[in-house]
Amino acid sequence: MPYVSLRLDRILATPITGDTVGAPADADTPAGEVGKQGWTVEDLSPPAVTLRRSTIEHNLDVMGKWIADHGVELWPHGKTTMAPQLWERQLATGATGLTAATPAQVRAMRAFGVERVLLANELVDAGSIAWIARALDDPSWDFTCWVDSVECVELLAHALSVSSVSRPVSVLVEVGHEGGRTGSRSVAVAIDVAEAVRRSAVLALQGVAGYEGTIGHERTPAVLDRVDRFLETMDEVAGGLVARGLVDGQLTVSAGGSLFFDRVAARFGGRPDPGVRVVIRAGCTITHDHGLYERSSPLADTPDRFLPAIEAWGSVLSRPEPDIAVIGLGKRDVPSDIEPPIPLRIHGDDRSLDGMQVLRLMDQHAICRVPPVLDLAPGELVVFGISHPCTAFDRRRVLFVLDDDDLVVDAVGTLF
Amino acid sequence: MPYVSLRLDRILATPITGDTVGAPADADTPAGEVGKQGWTVEDLSPPAVTLRRSTIEHNLDVMGKWIADHGVELWPHGKTTMAPQLWERQLATGATGLTAATPAQVRAMRAFGVERVLLANELVDAGSIAWIARALDDPSWDFTCWVDSVECVELLAHALSVSSVSRPVSVLVEVGHEGGRTGSRSVAVAIDVAEAVRRSAVLALQGVAGYEGTIGHERTPAVLDRVDRFLETMDEVAGGLVARGLVDGQLTVSAGGSLFFDRVAARFGGRPDPGVRVVIRAGCTITHDHGLYERSSPLADTPDRFLPAIEAWGSVLSRPEPDIAVIGLGKRDVPSDIEPPIPLRIHGDDRSLDGMQVLRLMDQHAICRVPPVLDLAPGELVVFGISHPCTAFDRRRVLFVLDDDDLVVDAVGTLF
Repeated sequence: MPYVSLRLDRILATPITGDTVGAPADADTPAGEVGKQGWTVEDLSPPAVTLRRSTIEHNLDVMGKWIADHGVELWPHGKTTMAPQLWERQLATGATGLTAATPAQVRAMRAFGVERVLLANELVDAGSIAWIARALDDPSWDFTCWVDSVECVELLAHALSVSSVSRPVSVLVEVGHEGGRTGSRSVAVAIDVAEAVRRSAVLALQGVAGYEGTIGHERTPAVLDRVDRFLETMDEVAGGLVARGLVDGQLTVSAGGSLFFDRVAARFGGRPDPGVRVVIRAGCTITHDHGLYERSSPLADTPDRFLPAIEAWGSVLSRPEPDIAVIGLGKRDVPSDIEPPIPLRIHGDDRSLDGMQVLRLMDQHAICRVPPVLDLAPGELVVFGISHPCTAFDRRRVLFVLDDDDLVVDAVGTLF
Repeated sequence: MPYVSLRLDRILATPITGDTVGAPADADTPAGEVGKQGWTVEDLSPPAVTLRRSTIEHNLDVMGKWIADHGVELWPHGKTTMAPQLWERQLATGATGLTAATPAQVRAMRAFGVERVLLANELVDAGSIAWIARALDDPSWDFTCWVDSVECVELLAHALSVSSVSRPVSVLVEVGHEGGRTGSRSVAVAIDVAEAVRRSAVLALQGVAGYEGTIGHERTPAVLDRVDRFLETMDEVAGGLVARGLVDGQLTVSAGGSLFFDRVAARFGGRPDPGVRVVIRAGCTITHDHGLYERSSPLADTPDRFLPAIEAWGSVLSRPEPDIAVIGLGKRDVPSDIEPPIPLRIHGDDRSLDGMQVLRLMDQHAICRVPPVLDLAPGELVVFGISHPCTAFDRRRVLFVLDDDDLVVDAVGTLF
């Protein structure tokens, strides 16, 4: 893989001070110099959220091999981390572009030097469309977005024309499913949308896209069956576009979040003539987690599985009742939208946390039930796993990176 | 009130660029210059979250009069906004100090020049205690924290002694309630804690504190009764401390979040000899909301009520099914922990949004049910209210401030 270098200066210059959440009380360094401070995890001021460097490198390696073995492209969803330093590692280990969810994320990616960006969403606001039109004056910049209705196509085409765009914008027709998010709800609507694209001189149809992750969160047979049927609908649309000669150049098919990317590769990958360019978008495999993805990753039961890289550290503040421990770690620090954080261990101690669970997460506190026999005292540091990476990253401007000896070797900045 | 000036330079210098969430696509200005750009709300790139300046000033005025009329001090919880520009307005309109939830928040307040800080929490980590000990070398800095167990007192006293603190740290004994957060669960435990404080040369007991907001979220008679009984327990503890001569100087009592501060004033305010210094901590009244606080504020049914100042703006991305609209506004933009965002209006249009509701909030999308007769088209801008301010602020590094004509007159930076 070619080494990819992003323009990280802005992130590396982020000031880390005593009020940066998680930083040592007397911190005063740019993010890029954190690894030179000699800090260990015990110098961090809890609550802190950390990334394990060796685990991230392992996950990047697993994913890089997987996509190479399966003949698909990976454009990981950059919205998961919004962390240019991690984007750079993804692009250096097999990813060929990045996916964004919003126009502001597209602008962030371009600002940091990402040359190929897929906006996995409809593009409807005038200011953002005008910006895209200007950005396309740079011939090296590769941008694609989704369209899912004739109205959306006409709005986008009109706004691009008004902005005198210098070359056509690549689009994918989005297929959705009932009860899902955006996306044409039938093959017929999707073909209508593609015909509308074809009528525009400022749009170029690349193929078809969809997001199957809204179908379910667990890999049960019923969910997998619905996922496969959704991909079959996408395939029907793809066939219809090709049969009607609506696609500019090679057909692209994009689907595949972090839960079902294997099904996408199984359906569309390695197809012979006419070849399909398959773009999966899994964004969470780089850090994985101790909850949803640990249970439901496509590689969960394989030898080359992903490993959880995110940990959250909170101090025991109080033992106000015999079976209650209150930890200084709240919903501002860790996600709770899928499930609460998962107690892993007491830092520097072997006592088991079996039976400990987070009952309630408040803004800055976790109320935990603990076995009354567990002598967990104020000031002790409890380490938690999290369930799902997206809402872990968006709670932090900086995540501290640990090596296997708990030395703080880096700080990863985010752009939320 | 004296005008209070904080050191806002760092916040005012925050760069606002095209990838700052909500900023115009071609923005390039420091936060402090946003008001000079001539932007209107239509220049912002949705999703955007805004504050209404006139409404905030109204709310500050209402709260300033209320505390003056009720003879209590207001140390608003700064964790709500973590926005030094708003802290400055609170301190300039009647607040006499600020409350923090974590040591990092205390450090942020001190960094921005807040001279009186109450950490409404236990202080247990060594690095933060050492920092507090050093900060107290500044004789003008006024710091108080809570203690709720003998272990906590001993840990704090030991760490302060090791740090050679130059003067005693003020503490309040925290009273809690069963099923609540931190806090001694009985009068007897609270008195024991106070006795432990008295034995330490590096701690000074100011009085008693508690948080009644964990008792309930709505002002039903049953909840109000439990709140009043909790305050009665706090009062018993206060009486016990005074009777035993454990309090250094005048007795302080602190309780009162944004839902029940009136009950705190009713119980403890304006007491004659021996006078009690009553410190309420309501942090949400400055912005109020369209949900929890609009329903349950103590001033909800009074002429001088608080008004909601926070609005969230999202574009219609798709109408994939006749009764579904997908808006580009997700749980990374707005809170959903109490209830989802509340549709208020279509920007620049009088069509009613009656019957529209958010069914599901994803990371970057709101899936809304809409009456099929509502002709809401891709690209239209929908304005939502939010339910509760804390988790609205912590999703944003910058909130844009609007005047009554929707001109962008300022940008408020946050420190999450």
